[in-house]
Amino acid sequence: MPLAPLAATYYALSIDVGGTFSKLALVDNRGRICHRERVPSAGGLAPSEVPTHVAHLARQALQGSEAWPESRAFERGLVAGICLAIPGIVDERSARIISCPNLSNWDGLQLGRLVAAELSLPVYLVNDGNAAVLGERWMGAGRGVDDLIGITIGTGIGCGLVLRGELYAGALGGAGEISHTIVDRHGPPCTCGQRGCLETYASARAIAGAARRAVEQGRSSELRNLAGGDPAALTAEHVFAAAQAGDDVANEIVAEAIAYLGISLANVVNLFNPSMIVIGGGMAQAGERLLEPLREMIHARGRTLLTDHCQVVLAQLGADAGVIGGAYVVFRGQGVPC
Amino acid sequence: MPLAPLAATYYALSIDVGGTFSKLALVDNRGRICHRERVPSAGGLAPSEVPTHVAHLARQALQGSEAWPESRAFERGLVAGICLAIPGIVDERSARIISCPNLSNWDGLQLGRLVAAELSLPVYLVNDGNAAVLGERWMGAGRGVDDLIGITIGTGIGCGLVLRGELYAGALGGAGEISHTIVDRHGPPCTCGQRGCLETYASARAIAGAARRAVEQGRSSELRNLAGGDPAALTAEHVFAAAQAGDDVANEIVAEAIAYLGISLANVVNLFNPSMIVIGGGMAQAGERLLEPLREMIHARGRTLLTDHCQVVLAQLGADAGVIGGAYVVFRGQGVPC
Repeated sequence: MPLAPLAATYYALSIDVGGTFSKLALVDNRGRICHRERVPSAGGLAPSEVPTHVAHLARQALQGSEAWPESRAFERGLVAGICLAIPGIVDERSARIISCPNLSNWDGLQLGRLVAAELSLPVYLVNDGNAAVLGERWMGAGRGVDDLIGITIGTGIGCGLVLRGELYAGALGGAGEISHTIVDRHGPPCTCGQRGCLETYASARAIAGAARRAVEQGRSSELRNLAGGDPAALTAEHVFAAAQAGDDVANEIVAEAIAYLGISLANVVNLFNPSMIVIGGGMAQAGERLLEPLREMIHARGRTLLTDHCQVVLAQLGADAGVIGGAYVVFRGQGVPC
Repeated sequence: MPLAPLAATYYALSIDVGGTFSKLALVDNRGRICHRERVPSAGGLAPSEVPTHVAHLARQALQGSEAWPESRAFERGLVAGICLAIPGIVDERSARIISCPNLSNWDGLQLGRLVAAELSLPVYLVNDGNAAVLGERWMGAGRGVDDLIGITIGTGIGCGLVLRGELYAGALGGAGEISHTIVDRHGPPCTCGQRGCLETYASARAIAGAARRAVEQGRSSELRNLAGGDPAALTAEHVFAAAQAGDDVANEIVAEAIAYLGISLANVVNLFNPSMIVIGGGMAQAGERLLEPLREMIHARGRTLLTDHCQVVLAQLGADAGVIGGAYVVFRGQGVPC
């Protein structure tokens, strides 16, 4: 019997929306990125102009450059759909944005329906943390894992949940809001109005802030040197570098962040009993310097039976996790083999 | 057209296993309890004797008293199976006990297979917190709710998760271990070896302990009177009664417990985005005196969009939630309409 012919390759246009710029990528149903662009988000537009702006960017990308071999996928009918990964709460079923703090002009928009109408293509919305964990599960560190928590540590701390092999977005689409779980009720004030949120201790912004304060108080010459005279220029990366160079203050800042992150993740292990936690985002670039003490802290503070069963690993897709996960949403939704 | 005949009534034998005594009930597939007993658990037996002991108790109940009209259900083939709700971690698929701290002679037993072999009936195992939330969802406060967290506050604090309409037990069967999530890393030592677990602030045991210490320090005459000369006799119930009578110390203890419970549940709302939290267990007898300030605390400390969407209600089945939920596990597993 002859082998069945190979199925056609399908594509999804995936847009990972950021506060200022968005990543746009054409991804095929084997998870390969065929083309990518960086486009402006639409923070300044009136709400009524947003769908047309998004549709315009998508159309441009789909009909785009001749240098891009898959550019004719659109006219050949091989683009299965579009996915927008949103930094906020979305109702996936109705493809509506419920809350998007960094792009408040997007709030409440029926963005899926409106963009779909302009392009005659199916349009999906997904939360960006959820897109990232779906990407890692499809093509990255979480392949084959059914109970998986994705943590993205950057300016804030994102979280996506895959439970029993499926994304779990919660009743309203807001599950995984780990950034504002409270780890110390008497802790420092957070931008959200609460006190002692995880984000105030363990985000890249919190770590940079602690370093800035240490320099301003004259506590670390190493950090002062790295800052090049401007403490506001310090990043979490500087702090990890200074810690590795043996700077006591930097080590103290990193230890404090890892203590709270470790307790939060130990609590997550106790609540969800996942098989794997995947750590991504900018801070994951610290690699094992972050992961090794974090694993120890999770093991020390969680229930042994459950932490023993839970691998804690680095994400593999870096900044591409969101667009790859978004493409997966399109292929799954459209029944394209992937 | 004549009405279709009513389907036969089926029964499940449900055993809610406690550290010393177990509740045993015959439950029909409409969720009604037809018979109940209180039987000794098998804490003192050798592991090899446990399955025979359990099978013996079950057989006795099934073949039991003539005063019990459904006693002939067994010989008539209308008993769909047996469920044991276990205070520990179980592997539901293999019906094996993974860890059962209060009945350590049950640890590791393939209890389902062994009891089934003695009785020629299907035997299911489920965690007791999971059984309780399934019971409340089937017949109690959570009817029709797809994303539901059940919290049982007694000596410890149990938790069961229904997500997307199905029990979520985690990769190993250990999900919902809220009792030992850490709410203050510098908090008091817990029996589990950690510090600052939720249980050390908000369990009935913790509240009674705080009251005992207050009496020993001569801080509350109201609590001393309630203790009747023996501070060790104080219960959480006494503390709620004294608080309602206006005792400052009792109010302080209750407020502290609710503050930590509220933060924990706000964190649970932020992580899971459920539509409902059902509060049961002995402490739920405090009713709205517990619930009203707890709701306020959850709203104050969780993300507004998510807490607004989450009802916090009292359990309706009281101490029967576990046996009713266990019966549901049997009926669902055996395809009996329920």
